[in-house]
Amino acid sequence: MTTVQAYAAKAAEAELEPYEYEAPNLGPDDVEIDVESCGICHSDLSMLDNEWGMTEYPFVGGHEVVGRVAQIGEHVPALQVGDRVGLGWSSRSCMHCDQCLAGDHNLCPSVEGTITHQHGGFANKVRCHWGWATKIPDGVDALSAGPLFCGGLTVFNPLVQMNLSPTSRVGVVGIGGLGHMALMFLDAWGCEVTAISRTRSKESEARELGADDFVATSEDDALAQQSGRFDLILNTTNANLPWDAYIQTLAPRGVLHTVGAAPKVEATVFPMIMGQRSLSSSPTGSIATTRLMLDFVARHHIKPMTEVFPMTQINDAMDKLRHGSPRYRIVLTR
Amino acid sequence: MTTVQAYAAKAAEAELEPYEYEAPNLGPDDVEIDVESCGICHSDLSMLDNEWGMTEYPFVGGHEVVGRVAQIGEHVPALQVGDRVGLGWSSRSCMHCDQCLAGDHNLCPSVEGTITHQHGGFANKVRCHWGWATKIPDGVDALSAGPLFCGGLTVFNPLVQMNLSPTSRVGVVGIGGLGHMALMFLDAWGCEVTAISRTRSKESEARELGADDFVATSEDDALAQQSGRFDLILNTTNANLPWDAYIQTLAPRGVLHTVGAAPKVEATVFPMIMGQRSLSSSPTGSIATTRLMLDFVARHHIKPMTEVFPMTQINDAMDKLRHGSPRYRIVLTR
Repeated sequence: MTTVQAYAAKAAEAELEPYEYEAPNLGPDDVEIDVESCGICHSDLSMLDNEWGMTEYPFVGGHEVVGRVAQIGEHVPALQVGDRVGLGWSSRSCMHCDQCLAGDHNLCPSVEGTITHQHGGFANKVRCHWGWATKIPDGVDALSAGPLFCGGLTVFNPLVQMNLSPTSRVGVVGIGGLGHMALMFLDAWGCEVTAISRTRSKESEARELGADDFVATSEDDALAQQSGRFDLILNTTNANLPWDAYIQTLAPRGVLHTVGAAPKVEATVFPMIMGQRSLSSSPTGSIATTRLMLDFVARHHIKPMTEVFPMTQINDAMDKLRHGSPRYRIVLTR
Repeated sequence: MTTVQAYAAKAAEAELEPYEYEAPNLGPDDVEIDVESCGICHSDLSMLDNEWGMTEYPFVGGHEVVGRVAQIGEHVPALQVGDRVGLGWSSRSCMHCDQCLAGDHNLCPSVEGTITHQHGGFANKVRCHWGWATKIPDGVDALSAGPLFCGGLTVFNPLVQMNLSPTSRVGVVGIGGLGHMALMFLDAWGCEVTAISRTRSKESEARELGADDFVATSEDDALAQQSGRFDLILNTTNANLPWDAYIQTLAPRGVLHTVGAAPKVEATVFPMIMGQRSLSSSPTGSIATTRLMLDFVARHHIKPMTEVFPMTQINDAMDKLRHGSPRYRIVLTR
């Protein structure tokens, strides 16, 4: 039994309040993490507000956790008390289905989420299956690492899934929590990177993060001028894009890949057929991809841009995410 | 100069009439083919009726040609007068752009079509660039080979483009001119093949062609029962599919690939993201893929199912395609 000091909402859109709960004896395959810091992701807000109709209250968010292993179950391999680990969107998978055994633990039909199936990381402690507690290698800045485990993994995963070539020309739609990390990853990946945003307000920052070019879609004919350019467009927004206008910016064989949960995609088929273009999507990544990402991050000294709040000011931080424009990711520290 | 005896329509939806035209001196990279047979494809009808608004009259259709090389230009490599060749949708590509030099001649920005940029194969002679006249290897039945060069290539191409694994479970939507060839290809490819049609009227034929299973979508819950099954769905129809219902039949990482020119695709994004599912499409294949297909066809003794008409009865044949249900592909012989 562990007593956990968390922050919970009692109802949709409510303030977060200190909340104490008892965690039962640790399962044999589980680890308990002493939380050092935890990022806030837009999906924490969506869950808090019950936007997806699946939130149970009291709700404890937080799924971009960095911390130290505090306790391990008796069957846990390769982790020791004191190891620094990260935990993201997924906290458990069955480890024996076709997907898990193919390395696609994130596609396990019974995958469980850190904030959807249990209490999350806005707390002093959080638990998960050992597989989803990923050791943070030397060279990764621990304080800013939290956002890598959900937002970062979400935009890193497509590059791995597609076996993206560094010769590719890539457009990133939306320069925010996800998009700013995508720019850094793609720059380090060796690609030609174009940041695509509504206005030019983020242009200089985007170029510092690794963008070679910048397109402001509010300008006349902005997308039309990019006709046939991109091998990959990575859409990080959940907006209803002008899909056909983006598809015509794709090169032959080009892919419009969305990780942002836009409600619908609607596209004219003929230009897709003629250019062998496709629409694809992916969720956050697998255990193996998380490890690849951390190794890549360490090698390339990639750090998410964060605004840091003490966890005691969690409501101010949530408010900033809800009403402001954090640049680009908020991290709570304990 | 060559005098060509063709069949042409003078206006949209008109009957085809004997039509004679003069072809100029043969270009240095061109070949002239003595037509032995020519398949009729649904796109011949679409062009005849000016459905795509690009038809010029007199219009000579025919782009599933089998014949003998009658004449070669002075720069033509690797073809001799008398060689038996096939010619499909594309008749020319620039041979020097990025796409051509990457082997994607079908995606060349200035690719020209056999019936869209010149007079086609409903004639005694037709011409093309040497690259698009593909030698028909021993073991391929010449009389039924015509439909391979457009319809066949269109459904063979995705298997090559995706590097489809023979371990895949594949659904083929639409058992017609394209779909019946897809069943044969996929069976020979080693896949688990499911034919998907509105009713069971074609079930026994589909199973003979290579289907392991059959789904009739007019039956209650037919698609719902296939939930999570298919690694690939190959849509050969131009119908507005219930896209979301098909997407939920895809396994994790599954692809809904359309070669049928449905007007629009419209899908809910969230199930795509969660299962890493995608929507893709492709046109007919490249020169290299045409050669791969013919080699595969010869090795596996694949023959399109055809109904044969003498070319003098071209209007009866067109009528059968327009109003009837040929099983499955019409070939005109001279």
